[in-house]
Amino acid sequence: MSSSIPAGFQMGGFHCGVKRNPNKEDLSLIVCDEDTVAAGVYTTNLVVAAPVVWDRARTPSDKIRAVITNSGNANACTGEQGDKDNAELAGIVAGKVGVSADQVLTMSTGIIGHHLPMEKIRTGLDEVFQRLGTDESHFDAAARGIMTTDKGKKVAARQCEINGKPVKLVGMCKGAGMIAPNMATMLSVVLTDAELSPAQAKQLLTDVTNDTFNCITVDGHRSTNDTLLLLASGKAETGELAGESLDTFRAELHQLCEDLAKQIPADGEGSTHLIEINIEGCKNRDDALRIAKTVADSALVKTAITGGDPNWGRIVSAAGYSGVKFDPMGMELVVNGHLLYREGTPVKFDEKTVSQSIKDNFETNVTLKFTEGDTKVRYWSSDLTVEYVRFNSEYRT
Amino acid sequence: MSSSIPAGFQMGGFHCGVKRNPNKEDLSLIVCDEDTVAAGVYTTNLVVAAPVVWDRARTPSDKIRAVITNSGNANACTGEQGDKDNAELAGIVAGKVGVSADQVLTMSTGIIGHHLPMEKIRTGLDEVFQRLGTDESHFDAAARGIMTTDKGKKVAARQCEINGKPVKLVGMCKGAGMIAPNMATMLSVVLTDAELSPAQAKQLLTDVTNDTFNCITVDGHRSTNDTLLLLASGKAETGELAGESLDTFRAELHQLCEDLAKQIPADGEGSTHLIEINIEGCKNRDDALRIAKTVADSALVKTAITGGDPNWGRIVSAAGYSGVKFDPMGMELVVNGHLLYREGTPVKFDEKTVSQSIKDNFETNVTLKFTEGDTKVRYWSSDLTVEYVRFNSEYRT
Repeated sequence: MSSSIPAGFQMGGFHCGVKRNPNKEDLSLIVCDEDTVAAGVYTTNLVVAAPVVWDRARTPSDKIRAVITNSGNANACTGEQGDKDNAELAGIVAGKVGVSADQVLTMSTGIIGHHLPMEKIRTGLDEVFQRLGTDESHFDAAARGIMTTDKGKKVAARQCEINGKPVKLVGMCKGAGMIAPNMATMLSVVLTDAELSPAQAKQLLTDVTNDTFNCITVDGHRSTNDTLLLLASGKAETGELAGESLDTFRAELHQLCEDLAKQIPADGEGSTHLIEINIEGCKNRDDALRIAKTVADSALVKTAITGGDPNWGRIVSAAGYSGVKFDPMGMELVVNGHLLYREGTPVKFDEKTVSQSIKDNFETNVTLKFTEGDTKVRYWSSDLTVEYVRFNSEYRT
Repeated sequence: MSSSIPAGFQMGGFHCGVKRNPNKEDLSLIVCDEDTVAAGVYTTNLVVAAPVVWDRARTPSDKIRAVITNSGNANACTGEQGDKDNAELAGIVAGKVGVSADQVLTMSTGIIGHHLPMEKIRTGLDEVFQRLGTDESHFDAAARGIMTTDKGKKVAARQCEINGKPVKLVGMCKGAGMIAPNMATMLSVVLTDAELSPAQAKQLLTDVTNDTFNCITVDGHRSTNDTLLLLASGKAETGELAGESLDTFRAELHQLCEDLAKQIPADGEGSTHLIEINIEGCKNRDDALRIAKTVADSALVKTAITGGDPNWGRIVSAAGYSGVKFDPMGMELVVNGHLLYREGTPVKFDEKTVSQSIKDNFETNVTLKFTEGDTKVRYWSSDLTVEYVRFNSEYRT
């Protein structure tokens, strides 16, 4: 059997009418064969959607049996009614699986400030249960069911051997900028058959998120619904993970999440470039992240990349206003392998060559080196185009 | 005599060829009749231009005799040669006035990473001294001499009575976003004939800047050259300012700087709206400013205003990710006088009316109220348009 899907899960997607387009799935269901270990990380926005409140209170856990996601409506800023609707959603799924509502996690993504169309969803839930299955096609339908303005589904898979047993990881995510009207950007679910404790799952997720999903930006606008879930069925019978086997799993999970995370700015609304920002030689991780984020969010850096302009001044000055103290004379900037700035003065470089390398490649690499220490981070952003502005200014609430 | 220009200053502007367009002044000179009190506030960017280093070391002072500004070249990231060129600039002006170079302040704005075209500037300095005068037309020429991508000169004037004497304040500033290639955004000079000590001038400038020039954003990109200078000739013979007379002057200076500061986002590159953001009911000023800045810098808030879209979700969620702790249920949002959000749930409002009020007015008022305390701040931003992106992505280094 060559399926990339780990054992222990059934998946499916269905269009029930939350989205207008009848060809787009708006319900995504994952059902676990048995009680399953699950952990989550969530948006740090103070204003959070009903499903985030629900899931936060129920993870980490070793008793999760299902994840139900609707797209097209974020169930955010919807008050008490939003909490009730979310609880009903979990309750219906729990009833069908034959477990308690507390064993069901929920996610929502889409328009904010509107109540869920519960009639449509109730009918849709009957249907999506009919469509559950264990194949990649079922996983793909579930992955499409969490999409909003994404151009296509975002999925990734990894396989490895742990304690002599084959282990699978598979993940889906969605996000393309703060979707109109800008809520509920990023959702992701990772499934594995490795054996993890709830505490391990939570710790692994936190470790890995810091270097992956927490290192991407499209427009710097953090949503109310961001959720990343890890579900571990244990069906690979790896035994308890510790030491080397835990490291192996963490590395695989890291790579999977990095693959998924990069797909978000790569599909950033209107974007024409994925920008990878490498910050090296910082005193500590906080400093490095702060510089990376400042460069990544600068409208001027982004528009320079859009225009294929090796405009080093914009990058260097963004680092300068990040709030991090560093020796400006020690700063060095390399774009797509070309040295542009060193020791406080511009370096002679062939502008046309660098410009062409930006234009010819979807990915632009920006490396900023400092002389404060040994810490490095990577960060991913999208460029800023006329289409982004058009998309977000022409949309009507 | 009804001139708005305070006594004690001669001003002039001239085109010497730093800018390509021969109709645009690129040198701006202010000469003080006698030793004059001067104070400055400067960019907090770690990467700073040569003139910022120069002025910082020489203010506050009671011996300043001239301010020379060139536009079209920021003299930033130009290393030792940049410092030498700047010192020569000050030296030439000092020689002509017959004072020491330490009594001359300098400002530069324009392209980064290029050495000043000293030949042109040397010749231009001879010429600009010929054009000095005390009229409003001379002040206007000096105000045009500091412009870069500004659509027009930015000036403001105030008059008041202090200790029975008429006092004048007049100011110029420039800035329209991080100008290509994004350095040297904001410069401003305020002239007055009030009597101030150097310490008073410095304190007044700091007080007032916090509520005015520090409360504006176009694209959140802080420059390497930002400088605001206050020069006080004392010619109004007000005597020492203290208590009520100092308060009067501070209020006038505040209003002048607010007038000037608002002109910057109002002229933001490509902008079609000035956005005034009122944050009320915060625990302290830091919290209020943090929320204001987060809302003001959000690409999604800006594009919503561009499109005349009363998209309250984008505003509410931006406040939510500002990093400030507040009770989300206590938040209230009013746009152009219309209540859009209260107590965690959307309010019914006539979307067309609110949309029309955004479209019909150049200024959009966004008021966010919290229930954490009594502190309020005001902040100004520009919207984000296709023209901004076009302008900044089509520019070539």
